[in-house]
Amino acid sequence: MIKAAILGATGYAGCELVRLLISHKDVELVYLASHSYEGRKFSEVYPMYQGHCDLTLMSDDLAAASDAADVVFMALPAGIASASVTEDMLKKTCIIDLGADFRLHDAGVYEKWYRMEHGNKELLKKAAYGLPEIHRDSIRGKRLIANPGCYTTASILALYPLVRHHLVDTSTIIIDAASGTSGAGRGNKTSSLFCEVNESFKAYGVSTHRHTPEIEQELSIAAGSDIVLQFTPHLVPMNRGILATCYAKYVKGVSDEDIKAAYDECYAGEYFIRLVSSMPETRNVRGSNFADIWYRRDERTGNIIVLSAIDNLMKGAAGQAVQNMNIITGLDEKCALEHLPSCTM
Amino acid sequence: MIKAAILGATGYAGCELVRLLISHKDVELVYLASHSYEGRKFSEVYPMYQGHCDLTLMSDDLAAASDAADVVFMALPAGIASASVTEDMLKKTCIIDLGADFRLHDAGVYEKWYRMEHGNKELLKKAAYGLPEIHRDSIRGKRLIANPGCYTTASILALYPLVRHHLVDTSTIIIDAASGTSGAGRGNKTSSLFCEVNESFKAYGVSTHRHTPEIEQELSIAAGSDIVLQFTPHLVPMNRGILATCYAKYVKGVSDEDIKAAYDECYAGEYFIRLVSSMPETRNVRGSNFADIWYRRDERTGNIIVLSAIDNLMKGAAGQAVQNMNIITGLDEKCALEHLPSCTM
Amino acid sequence: MIKAAILGATGYAGCELVRLLISHKDVELVYLASHSYEGRKFSEVYPMYQGHCDLTLMSDDLAAASDAADVVFMALPAGIASASVTEDMLKKTCIIDLGADFRLHDAGVYEKWYRMEHGNKELLKKAAYGLPEIHRDSIRGKRLIANPGCYTTASILALYPLVRHHLVDTSTIIIDAASGTSGAGRGNKTSSLFCEVNESFKAYGVSTHRHTPEIEQELSIAAGSDIVLQFTPHLVPMNRGILATCYAKYVKGVSDEDIKAAYDECYAGEYFIRLVSSMPETRNVRGSNFADIWYRRDERTGNIIVLSAIDNLMKGAAGQAVQNMNIITGLDEKCALEHLPSCTM
Amino acid sequence: MIKAAILGATGYAGCELVRLLISHKDVELVYLASHSYEGRKFSEVYPMYQGHCDLTLMSDDLAAASDAADVVFMALPAGIASASVTEDMLKKTCIIDLGADFRLHDAGVYEKWYRMEHGNKELLKKAAYGLPEIHRDSIRGKRLIANPGCYTTASILALYPLVRHHLVDTSTIIIDAASGTSGAGRGNKTSSLFCEVNESFKAYGVSTHRHTPEIEQELSIAAGSDIVLQFTPHLVPMNRGILATCYAKYVKGVSDEDIKAAYDECYAGEYFIRLVSSMPETRNVRGSNFADIWYRRDERTGNIIVLSAIDNLMKGAAGQAVQNMNIITGLDEKCALEHLPSCTM
Repeated sequence: MIKAAILGATGYAGCELVRLLISHKDVELVYLASHSYEGRKFSEVYPMYQGHCDLTLMSDDLAAASDAADVVFMALPAGIASASVTEDMLKKTCIIDLGADFRLHDAGVYEKWYRMEHGNKELLKKAAYGLPEIHRDSIRGKRLIANPGCYTTASILALYPLVRHHLVDTSTIIIDAASGTSGAGRGNKTSSLFCEVNESFKAYGVSTHRHTPEIEQELSIAAGSDIVLQFTPHLVPMNRGILATCYAKYVKGVSDEDIKAAYDECYAGEYFIRLVSSMPETRNVRGSNFADIWYRRDERTGNIIVLSAIDNLMKGAAGQAVQNMNIITGLDEKCALEHLPSCTM
Repeated sequence: MIKAAILGATGYAGCELVRLLISHKDVELVYLASHSYEGRKFSEVYPMYQGHCDLTLMSDDLAAASDAADVVFMALPAGIASASVTEDMLKKTCIIDLGADFRLHDAGVYEKWYRMEHGNKELLKKAAYGLPEIHRDSIRGKRLIANPGCYTTASILALYPLVRHHLVDTSTIIIDAASGTSGAGRGNKTSSLFCEVNESFKAYGVSTHRHTPEIEQELSIAAGSDIVLQFTPHLVPMNRGILATCYAKYVKGVSDEDIKAAYDECYAGEYFIRLVSSMPETRNVRGSNFADIWYRRDERTGNIIVLSAIDNLMKGAAGQAVQNMNIITGLDEKCALEHLPSCTM
Repeated sequence: MIKAAILGATGYAGCELVRLLISHKDVELVYLASHSYEGRKFSEVYPMYQGHCDLTLMSDDLAAASDAADVVFMALPAGIASASVTEDMLKKTCIIDLGADFRLHDAGVYEKWYRMEHGNKELLKKAAYGLPEIHRDSIRGKRLIANPGCYTTASILALYPLVRHHLVDTSTIIIDAASGTSGAGRGNKTSSLFCEVNESFKAYGVSTHRHTPEIEQELSIAAGSDIVLQFTPHLVPMNRGILATCYAKYVKGVSDEDIKAAYDECYAGEYFIRLVSSMPETRNVRGSNFADIWYRRDERTGNIIVLSAIDNLMKGAAGQAVQNMNIITGLDEKCALEHLPSCTM
Repeated sequence: MIKAAILGATGYAGCELVRLLISHKDVELVYLASHSYEGRKFSEVYPMYQGHCDLTLMSDDLAAASDAADVVFMALPAGIASASVTEDMLKKTCIIDLGADFRLHDAGVYEKWYRMEHGNKELLKKAAYGLPEIHRDSIRGKRLIANPGCYTTASILALYPLVRHHLVDTSTIIIDAASGTSGAGRGNKTSSLFCEVNESFKAYGVSTHRHTPEIEQELSIAAGSDIVLQFTPHLVPMNRGILATCYAKYVKGVSDEDIKAAYDECYAGEYFIRLVSSMPETRNVRGSNFADIWYRRDERTGNIIVLSAIDNLMKGAAGQAVQNMNIITGLDEKCALEHLPSCTM
């Protein structure tokens, strides 16, 4: 049995990790921590888990978690992981960080977009960017995994085949994405109140959202050249789901067959990626670790439009984290992740 | 492997059955039927199941289904099952009817509330009322199971211990219940349109809802005397979930301990019933087969208030149907029903 | 022009008052106060009012408001009004308190249910309970109005004709009500977050909700005898609206005509009360000051069921407050309150 | 008093027209028609208008409506208006068509995108495109008004100043828009059911949506050259509201001041257009006729991003239609359109 710890267990991503790991046949939860609810039982905070997860919540103490667990999941605000992870801990445990601290290879880019100093630049070299469908091999040997952001997972998976195969003019990329409200976290903010979100739709973080450099980094690596792109997130009055609607002008002469070949080549055999024949809807992946992708070339405008749908808490956070855990511990990658979406959940 | 068929597979309950049975390790789906989508693939109607359930939808032909399957689930409008099930079919297959046709022991009561003739009164004696926590023994030997209604499951489970132990004045029972919109089915009705349901709350079927006699029947059996009660359903702008808020005057002298003893006695060891310590919320059971029950005695008013929450498509329909299938086929009752609810699904 | 002030202007009821008073042809807003946003413009907090209400928010200073305005609306938490209103202020201004401090005639009852000392028992005698359809005459001469609670308005209006005309056994009254989430206010509480409310339904405050004694007081007065009743609120995943589903055993011999006569007698000529012929839905009153009421006698059970729908922020709060202001200032009672509900708002 | 008729009065846009015109001090509703509910009272279909609009619904007979009314509003599916409006009728009445039949100046474009023959190409010359902020002068003298589409109103208003002032490369325009579900109409379609829409987000009509040529037509006129652009609509689980997120590369050298000057020049004095300082949210315009517009130049990417929010049933349909009626009848343009949005409606 793999012993697992979760820091930030009472946030939405943390709670989703609990749900997945309770049902994971090879995992035992040994340490759950919560800044806000320390000392209470997990099932007091989430009564739905009464009888299924009654562990007492500890402090967010990474050292203690590292001693107790083979794998530590960190679901904490930016800045904490880089300030607390040490090489020593990584000798004792594997760390899967659901935050942003180890995602950007260039600490300078991190410091510009996150407006804080990076706490441990040395460790950046030790981390793998945990998007298995693209970086599975480099994930395998690592003990520190930077689990990708939710918007970034949807966006990178959508565009990766096009930029890798040089089918689009990368200076024209626009990603217009929308997320359910769980993406805003469980913090008590007026803007997250039911009456403020319900029956409304808005953009936010226009031209400034922190997921932008992460998408640019990964697509630049795939393209072999620097990409600057436009990313606009929106807030949808629903709990879960991300849809990324991506646009780019295609290179002259690119055919539908070229595009299909690119997606097929990149995603052949990838269980969690579904190249779907009808336009994705977020409910089609709800509660699952699937990413549904669909594309169309528009001859009128010269654009390719790619749609990509994920569950932001699953493939966009906890599901992908468990997928990464399965990889680094040598388990079947799908283990505990075979939930099917439900027609009306 | 148990071969299973579903008639009405593209309705919400039918689709939920598909979801559960795909993941059931001892079941193979062999026959899916749909009146509206005959000839199309199930995964064309529900793209979320592409690759997981691509069976072609057949006609709603019970005879063909009986020939093909060990268990046939019928999720069809009232009146069809009683007109089509025969004793002959029951020799070949077991039938679990999610409709109302075999739930009421007295065909006269059926005909009064459903305003149609009952098609096969003889068969009523062969059917078991499929609420396992109350009728497990009589379910075991049967080949025809009347799967209870959604409101009725929530209501009966809430009140059963009180009436069985004679703790309340049964002439004062009021059940005020509310359901998510999937309970109205997938038919194209103006009243089920998003803009008609969203941002509104209403009662319906006041004093006339068809689930009333079903609740009365079961509680009368438990009490050993005829019960007439008030049942009022409401429509909630959400997809899933039922909450029943039940009231009855308690018999003079009844103590909190008496009440607790009644619930404990009735539900000890029942995996799917959780006597919860905080007031139930429908999201706490969402996607699961659990029924969460909570009660309080109010000395000021002389009432006991019982709250009961289920997922109307799970414990209120498909989940309970699979539970019944597991019982009559001798499998572990929990098989394929161990999904945990999710904090934000 | 009547000069109006609002304390607690950035809460949901306060903001609704602003909306109504901006459009009131005889009113000028002169003083808006907000504890949380003091010093900012109202339209910074609510950008939808840019250009329509750009007043700078002041501190919640009742004395200053009394000096500045002819009518002061207080939309503040329990306990503040009773601690700050003085007889002196009432000489200068009229106060309409949307909170609970002056609603209960018996300070002891207040102290028991609100668990705090009442700050000014003397003033209770000066206050009128501001439900115009029942107390219009006593409102007229007063300078301190206790604006009723939202649940209480819906509940009292539903049951008043029955108890006043002695048509029901008052020991059997049960009020099962449900509210949209704006009723929980704009405070930053985890339980009010979108993902906690959306896609769920729950009861709360079972047997302990503070609106209970207010309903009991008003119905007791109407009946001429003490009434104790059961009140259970529920939370609906929608912004606005209250539906009260009320039950009581009717007195032997009471006919449908008796009931109709009672409602007609009590509500003849009342513009804001609509005795509707189909069951109320909260959307039918959304954004309006109407109360839609419907009743049915059930011979099977001996109950009368009454349904009552209001918009909790309108007839349940700000709308009724403006109605009261119109009365005490001698204006047309409907002024600024003639908004019609919208089919899909 | 202006006598008004509405064909298609029971659809969502029709019902919104009723709401507005009931409260219009210079208008009397004389003829309401509904294909689906002919012979019933309007208030039976929409009980919220009981006592406010109890007209009996007639057949969708344009000739009869023309005889009865000074202004006829047509809110009918594409193809009907062009097949039924005649020059003769226009001598008797003014027609404001909320459908698409008279919006596209080129019947060939209509026939390509709508896949049906245009019924009356001659009349196209008589029609004005009813976007007052751009075409007020040409609207004034006309008796046939083509009321713009919902997405098109939001999109054109967002981009008009930029293309008119040649600030952007028009070959790079992308409009990524999202609408509440009332935009799909009140027809009984599975895809409009509550459980299909709720808790999901999707794109639809990618590269094929019929509003595309309408936006292209208007922006081409403004630019003085042909524009081809990308338009992608999305469906939001809410009743009302459209947000258009628009992108275009700006012309080298364009400054923030240039952009501001363009918007100020185009929209100075326009009551219904608000150049807002914070990013628009659809709730900020909900129930009102406002269009909230916000823009940002992104030096990193070379794009201008423009956000535009309207209520699809108001400025996107019925509100704009009443605005057009006010213009052609010589009334104050704002008459019956001064509703303010509400913080939580």
